[in-house]
Amino acid sequence: MEFWFNEFHLPGLKYSLKVNKVLYTGKSEYQRLDVFETEEFGRVFTLDGILMVTQKDEFVYHEMMAHILSNTHPEPKRALVIGGGDGGTIRELAKHGSYEELHLCEIDKHVSDVCLEYFPEVAGVLKDDKRVTCYFEDGIEFIKNKKNYYDVICIDSTDPIGPAVGLFKKDFYELCHAALKEDGMLIAQSESLWYHGDIIKSMHDDLKTMFPIVKLAQGSLLAYQSGYWGFTVASKKYDPIEDFKVEKAIEIEKTTKYYNKEIHKAAFVLPNFARDFLK
Amino acid sequence: MEFWFNEFHLPGLKYSLKVNKVLYTGKSEYQRLDVFETEEFGRVFTLDGILMVTQKDEFVYHEMMAHILSNTHPEPKRALVIGGGDGGTIRELAKHGSYEELHLCEIDKHVSDVCLEYFPEVAGVLKDDKRVTCYFEDGIEFIKNKKNYYDVICIDSTDPIGPAVGLFKKDFYELCHAALKEDGMLIAQSESLWYHGDIIKSMHDDLKTMFPIVKLAQGSLLAYQSGYWGFTVASKKYDPIEDFKVEKAIEIEKTTKYYNKEIHKAAFVLPNFARDFLK
Repeated sequence: MEFWFNEFHLPGLKYSLKVNKVLYTGKSEYQRLDVFETEEFGRVFTLDGILMVTQKDEFVYHEMMAHILSNTHPEPKRALVIGGGDGGTIRELAKHGSYEELHLCEIDKHVSDVCLEYFPEVAGVLKDDKRVTCYFEDGIEFIKNKKNYYDVICIDSTDPIGPAVGLFKKDFYELCHAALKEDGMLIAQSESLWYHGDIIKSMHDDLKTMFPIVKLAQGSLLAYQSGYWGFTVASKKYDPIEDFKVEKAIEIEKTTKYYNKEIHKAAFVLPNFARDFLK
Repeated sequence: MEFWFNEFHLPGLKYSLKVNKVLYTGKSEYQRLDVFETEEFGRVFTLDGILMVTQKDEFVYHEMMAHILSNTHPEPKRALVIGGGDGGTIRELAKHGSYEELHLCEIDKHVSDVCLEYFPEVAGVLKDDKRVTCYFEDGIEFIKNKKNYYDVICIDSTDPIGPAVGLFKKDFYELCHAALKEDGMLIAQSESLWYHGDIIKSMHDDLKTMFPIVKLAQGSLLAYQSGYWGFTVASKKYDPIEDFKVEKAIEIEKTTKYYNKEIHKAAFVLPNFARDFLK
């Protein structure tokens, strides 16, 4: 008997991974959590039946979330990751020696607990790095109390359904804007370039009302719909292309599997169809 | 009752499209051919159960196959597409006024006949453009008789199983080399960056023994495994980056949905893991 994990990327498009072993199944106050050992992608972590982390490709998403901002801001000291309870984005941020405080605000402690157990190579940083503090609470409530505090915010949310829906709203971006220092910047995962042009456009337009610099980057991964994933950068002062610190990227790219100094720039090159939906 | 088309991207990874209508099913001397109307990707064309063309994303592959070479060579006049019986690569080449002869060598006439009927927007150029001549014969035999003839060759093959297996061999590349003029260049579809590093590396090494310039480009599409697709350029004289003719790209990008002058260059930027398998 074979066991397959099925994810509907679209109502008429299904992506199925052969599962060799179910390692964990649980339910938190917010969502269902599963860990599978798959034939092709190693261990995978799912929330409400949606792929979140796979051992085969998690580095793409986490490197892009962390290094674009960290290699643009000249000396970021305080970073906040909202969502991202798996720890991958924090793991990559932690490679930058300039950070003094790395805050994680994840609504569901269960996510981090499961990832610490089943993905220690991703989540281990959450307990091993003294600069990290984990806040297991609602990101929107958390950020209301922070003003002019962070250099960098990474919005490492799930899809805009379920617990993360508020993290795609303009009100939330305004709170992030206020929580950032006057030269702060944020990055937000922005769904699929092929399927979610409407979401990307709406994020872009909302952020543009408050940040002078808003740019869309992309990366190629495996776990998420279409594999062609968006990352929106919004910044008060530093431009991710103009103010790119290549010497920092040269150090970081010794440790990465996807990101490098050329990818940093090429990530912002968009195909015509994506330029069109941003118009 | 629902009908789904299933493709195994890997033994443990299945990609399934909901089919609203089966429009055509046939069998040629070489392979099985199907045309489906799908819920998400419009009409799709499959060979031996593998996605070849979808209306939603075919432009990515065809634009990349045609424009990288055509906007690098200063004035290409004669092009050969080997495989590519759907006509999409010829359609994009035909946008360049410099071409006087556009040759298609497709082993299976059935492919072009089916695409002319069900994908006229892709294949129509095969009968409508006077510069096009279709040869329905074996590409390896065809090219043996051509010496110092073409400016551009596009190896638009299926996967290296079935009829296309010979199109991934060093002997064949030597015939292409001989068929190209002294400043000629070729591009070959090179499978998935995520899954076929071994194939890409082997093509790269084989081509490097005869062409001074060999570079890997990539593009993001939907229909093929992982979506992260390789295109290998091999050239006797012109470098796709150094000799890029930006003024030609500016004209072409008015007609394209993926390719533009920035994509031309960014396509050659590879993530660390792909640089590693090319070492």
